[in-house]
Amino acid sequence: MSRRVRIGLAGLGRVGRLHAANLCRTPSLELVRLVDADARLAEATAAELGVAWSTRYEDVLDDASVDAVAIATPTPLHAPMIEQAAAAAKHVFCEKPLALDLEAAIRAVRVARERNVKLQVGFHRRFDRDWAAAAARVHAGELGDVYLFRTSLRDMQPPPLDYIRSSGGVFVDMTIHDLDTARWLVGDIDEVTAIGAALSDPGFAEAGDVDNAIVTLRFANGALGVIDNSRVAGYGYECSTEIVGSKATVRIAHHRRVHNEWLTPGAAAVDWVSDFTERYAHAYLRELEAFAAAIRDDRPVAVSGEDAIAAYVLARACDRSLRERRPVQLRREDGGHGVVYALEEAA
Amino acid sequence: MSRRVRIGLAGLGRVGRLHAANLCRTPSLELVRLVDADARLAEATAAELGVAWSTRYEDVLDDASVDAVAIATPTPLHAPMIEQAAAAAKHVFCEKPLALDLEAAIRAVRVARERNVKLQVGFHRRFDRDWAAAAARVHAGELGDVYLFRTSLRDMQPPPLDYIRSSGGVFVDMTIHDLDTARWLVGDIDEVTAIGAALSDPGFAEAGDVDNAIVTLRFANGALGVIDNSRVAGYGYECSTEIVGSKATVRIAHHRRVHNEWLTPGAAAVDWVSDFTERYAHAYLRELEAFAAAIRDDRPVAVSGEDAIAAYVLARACDRSLRERRPVQLRREDGGHGVVYALEEAA
Amino acid sequence: MSRRVRIGLAGLGRVGRLHAANLCRTPSLELVRLVDADARLAEATAAELGVAWSTRYEDVLDDASVDAVAIATPTPLHAPMIEQAAAAAKHVFCEKPLALDLEAAIRAVRVARERNVKLQVGFHRRFDRDWAAAAARVHAGELGDVYLFRTSLRDMQPPPLDYIRSSGGVFVDMTIHDLDTARWLVGDIDEVTAIGAALSDPGFAEAGDVDNAIVTLRFANGALGVIDNSRVAGYGYECSTEIVGSKATVRIAHHRRVHNEWLTPGAAAVDWVSDFTERYAHAYLRELEAFAAAIRDDRPVAVSGEDAIAAYVLARACDRSLRERRPVQLRREDGGHGVVYALEEAA
Amino acid sequence: MSRRVRIGLAGLGRVGRLHAANLCRTPSLELVRLVDADARLAEATAAELGVAWSTRYEDVLDDASVDAVAIATPTPLHAPMIEQAAAAAKHVFCEKPLALDLEAAIRAVRVARERNVKLQVGFHRRFDRDWAAAAARVHAGELGDVYLFRTSLRDMQPPPLDYIRSSGGVFVDMTIHDLDTARWLVGDIDEVTAIGAALSDPGFAEAGDVDNAIVTLRFANGALGVIDNSRVAGYGYECSTEIVGSKATVRIAHHRRVHNEWLTPGAAAVDWVSDFTERYAHAYLRELEAFAAAIRDDRPVAVSGEDAIAAYVLARACDRSLRERRPVQLRREDGGHGVVYALEEAA
Repeated sequence: MSRRVRIGLAGLGRVGRLHAANLCRTPSLELVRLVDADARLAEATAAELGVAWSTRYEDVLDDASVDAVAIATPTPLHAPMIEQAAAAAKHVFCEKPLALDLEAAIRAVRVARERNVKLQVGFHRRFDRDWAAAAARVHAGELGDVYLFRTSLRDMQPPPLDYIRSSGGVFVDMTIHDLDTARWLVGDIDEVTAIGAALSDPGFAEAGDVDNAIVTLRFANGALGVIDNSRVAGYGYECSTEIVGSKATVRIAHHRRVHNEWLTPGAAAVDWVSDFTERYAHAYLRELEAFAAAIRDDRPVAVSGEDAIAAYVLARACDRSLRERRPVQLRREDGGHGVVYALEEAA
Repeated sequence: MSRRVRIGLAGLGRVGRLHAANLCRTPSLELVRLVDADARLAEATAAELGVAWSTRYEDVLDDASVDAVAIATPTPLHAPMIEQAAAAAKHVFCEKPLALDLEAAIRAVRVARERNVKLQVGFHRRFDRDWAAAAARVHAGELGDVYLFRTSLRDMQPPPLDYIRSSGGVFVDMTIHDLDTARWLVGDIDEVTAIGAALSDPGFAEAGDVDNAIVTLRFANGALGVIDNSRVAGYGYECSTEIVGSKATVRIAHHRRVHNEWLTPGAAAVDWVSDFTERYAHAYLRELEAFAAAIRDDRPVAVSGEDAIAAYVLARACDRSLRERRPVQLRREDGGHGVVYALEEAA
Repeated sequence: MSRRVRIGLAGLGRVGRLHAANLCRTPSLELVRLVDADARLAEATAAELGVAWSTRYEDVLDDASVDAVAIATPTPLHAPMIEQAAAAAKHVFCEKPLALDLEAAIRAVRVARERNVKLQVGFHRRFDRDWAAAAARVHAGELGDVYLFRTSLRDMQPPPLDYIRSSGGVFVDMTIHDLDTARWLVGDIDEVTAIGAALSDPGFAEAGDVDNAIVTLRFANGALGVIDNSRVAGYGYECSTEIVGSKATVRIAHHRRVHNEWLTPGAAAVDWVSDFTERYAHAYLRELEAFAAAIRDDRPVAVSGEDAIAAYVLARACDRSLRERRPVQLRREDGGHGVVYALEEAA
Repeated sequence: MSRRVRIGLAGLGRVGRLHAANLCRTPSLELVRLVDADARLAEATAAELGVAWSTRYEDVLDDASVDAVAIATPTPLHAPMIEQAAAAAKHVFCEKPLALDLEAAIRAVRVARERNVKLQVGFHRRFDRDWAAAAARVHAGELGDVYLFRTSLRDMQPPPLDYIRSSGGVFVDMTIHDLDTARWLVGDIDEVTAIGAALSDPGFAEAGDVDNAIVTLRFANGALGVIDNSRVAGYGYECSTEIVGSKATVRIAHHRRVHNEWLTPGAAAVDWVSDFTERYAHAYLRELEAFAAAIRDDRPVAVSGEDAIAAYVLARACDRSLRERRPVQLRREDGGHGVVYALEEAA
């Protein structure tokens, strides 16, 4: 395909609107229609961007001129909407997680594969310049053998408890990004152990969730790993990674809003970014460019549905480890669908 | 004006092509025609961007649907092309410097003013997030009284000697950005003193230029300032500013290509950006957005022709100081044309 | 006591010689005699420092003018030498760990307590300016509630395998410092979980040890913690701590040998310290000053034998967790001897 | 000389007391007597350190067992006291500047040379680990050709105006350290230009002094340099140096009191040192060790009287440049006394 990839977008929540703006700035993509159940929201956003709109997803799928859809609807809709898109022969870009239900995710990935449509998942960190640059050198072997992987993901302020209650828990909602990063940079994971606590607000415990968590990893290549997550870091949004290897150690970090230092008697003050949209503005743009390029050049997508399932299974294993206070083993298997991870049977 | 600003671009050298790409990515602008004397270059670039092209500047000026022109041609053409655009009632975005000849620059600014077209000059640093954020707080008085202004601008590698020979010298070509920053952040300048040396290559001296220079400033408000410039810093491109004030001190710096650290036995390695296009990719985009907004909303431009003249006069004063080995005084005057600086008479 | 504290030193290995030099530089202490089983070493070191020497520990204990002893002999000798010193009414400064055998450590602490002699243990990190400054503010409540504690301790190069074999394992030898830091800064620990691997050299596995390890902690106040250790970080010696709290987050780190940056094309190089003696040169001096002050002013020592036992029990719990692949609970109890921790019964 | 160097100290002001404490901690030196015109101060300090005292300098000079004197009296006494010490065959460590009168300084240096006593001057920065490490690599040629030298010296708060009035002015009192650093790291200086202003307090102008200054340098090897000084930086004490060379660039900086970062919503705070005694505690110790070693091993001192005169002449040239608003040339000459610099005749 040599022309611009024509795409529709379903879901105009916070991340959906972020994608809408980026779809307009990506030269290789042409945003042709917005879909949201809320007609007023759909109409207003469409007017602002100068594109068509609809409340019905089918209006996108039935449009023969459309090549692809981007899905940013609530999680329970992801898997069925992927299957519908695949049935309509549309390529799919979908937000994480694919589902809160492993079977649904596996089926959606299988259907997309069978229908031969590309499915790319929104692990935007893979498109950030800092991680991408490190990954290139890590994959080229510059670290030697990996000994320790360490990553922190911390939000400045927690989302509303309503969001928490339907989020699937911190591991599926937040740690899943770190688990994907761990797999991407170091490789398959054999074992996870998690501890967690609800420390800032009893609402987390009431929702069956935690607001702080630490997960240790044992990679298939022998390396050890640790992830720490906090919903309530207070000082700012932080996402940083470190990998210690036999030949070198790499640190990835980039948190400043602006690169100014204000020095006053007693202190030098540095301005932090406050959330992921500020931190990853570019990565959100680049993942769409990558998606368009995969379609246009008929290459594999950069982040596959299988990647999403692997991260999801790992997040679920964290959940089990936290509840059962023990390490949880992972099995890697391929049932012909490319699904690489499976949970051990419940203890 | 509520629609997109329609703009033509003249000059497809290095910075011209950079502007062309950005003009396509700026939602408030519509690039309609490229102009370059080299037909093959104009045609190839236009094909890539899907716009019209021409070898004749007049084809842009004669197009009644065009609102504005961006000028990135060689410096001697800047002033006459501004005057032509003003005569055709087109707004102008022009690269620095306006001219290598002060009278030409003053006349171009006056003509634009008389014809009531907006003229914005390409001091892109004003649109960089780091400097802009600092400027907002400096202008809000957070520094208190300014004591010391210090800024460094250093290139990793020098441009070809051919470029040096026609550049107008380091002060007009390079220091002019720092002089604009000094005026922007601290205020008017009363006195400059410059020292310089050709240290890396005798070609600089043969061209009557220097490859390293230090300029001290005395501001009208009493503050002191110092600029250092190098064509040959070797380690990377550096642009950093520091202002010491009675209430606080601010440091502006941002040089890394990616925010990774590679730690190996004996050293931690940090990756620097290698030139200004990498460092200021965003500022180049934002200055065009600002230009479009000034036209659309009929507001003053962010960087005026008078700003360009002021920086130019200061650069020339540096030149005189270097040659005459003494401080050179500046007079501020307004001959009705808003020209704010004048050189003292030659000693 | 208003005069200088007179002290003898037993053990002239690597750390023993480091203490010897510091004892000579501490105005509040007077080093009066060195003891080592190796007469040649004792004589040479004593000549250099201008003090008496002996191969017999008793020569120090029998000297009525001696107030205290510093013990830097091999670990198995620590506990019996503490008891001998206590019997001779000498105050004791002893290197960590107190013993590789918990009962021996508990008995030594009890004897010192019964004989009313001060016993200070060599957790030098408590005397480092960076940790001490942080601790003061943490203990003053500036962090609010603690959410996450994170600390890294990594050696540039591993010690010889001979050392490893008699070290008691990484947790007792290395992690013990981090466990003490965790207790000092955050408080009591209820649960540990450890993973580890021998990745750099099969010799570690043959010695029944690991060269990389991650330990998670659950503190009595609910906070979570994680320690990572490596024997083989390669890039330098690293010891850094971070604590995320509800009001603030603190980071403690100081690794540079000198505070220079060398910028060359492609990289900025920073010089790291290579081991703990370089990093903590001052802390080693200060812990002796603190010990002398405790004796002179008859105040409690800054790091007690009970602190040493607590860290030791925690290290043993890590060991069990690693072997049994599960969390290990800790009980806090006081059998009248101030011993605060006890391992759960083996599973 | 193989025994400890026996030394007397004259002058117990702020820096004198700092030297007294260090003299007690330097194993190669033995402090034997303190001298101060204020008997009460001398007696109290001597009691604290357990040494003899006197109000008469002669009591030190007449003591045949004394090898050397350290002079930390008010500046006007430096030169005559050096001459007296030389006449008594005592080696001399003297604070900067040697005199406020060039002739007196030159004579003192000459007398010390003729009497064959060592004279070391208190440019303590040469003994700081960061500068010393950089200097070793700079002198080994790792920078290649030097292009730009840049250094900042800023006090957090100004000294009392009484001190200012008798200080000899900012160049002789403060910049003199930077001028010595410039000569040490880069080489001889041919030309200086200075600008300055009294911005924080009219008392500076009334005292004929400035509180902020910038000095540019032209080195004999062609390199350019710039020094900025402030008495009123507010945020902390800063001393940092940068040298840009053809092969590399080095940055020397170290300002933190402790290496902690406190991150709170909106800012990361870093603690700065507040003055030179905190910053250079070690350098003050090392310069005394170096002095003792020079005497004991009969080697040249690390910072000679000629170095002091050179820095002083440069400081005076700055003063003239500031007053006459023009560059001031330096001549290097050796009148047989090793005096390397001479001011041009007054304009």
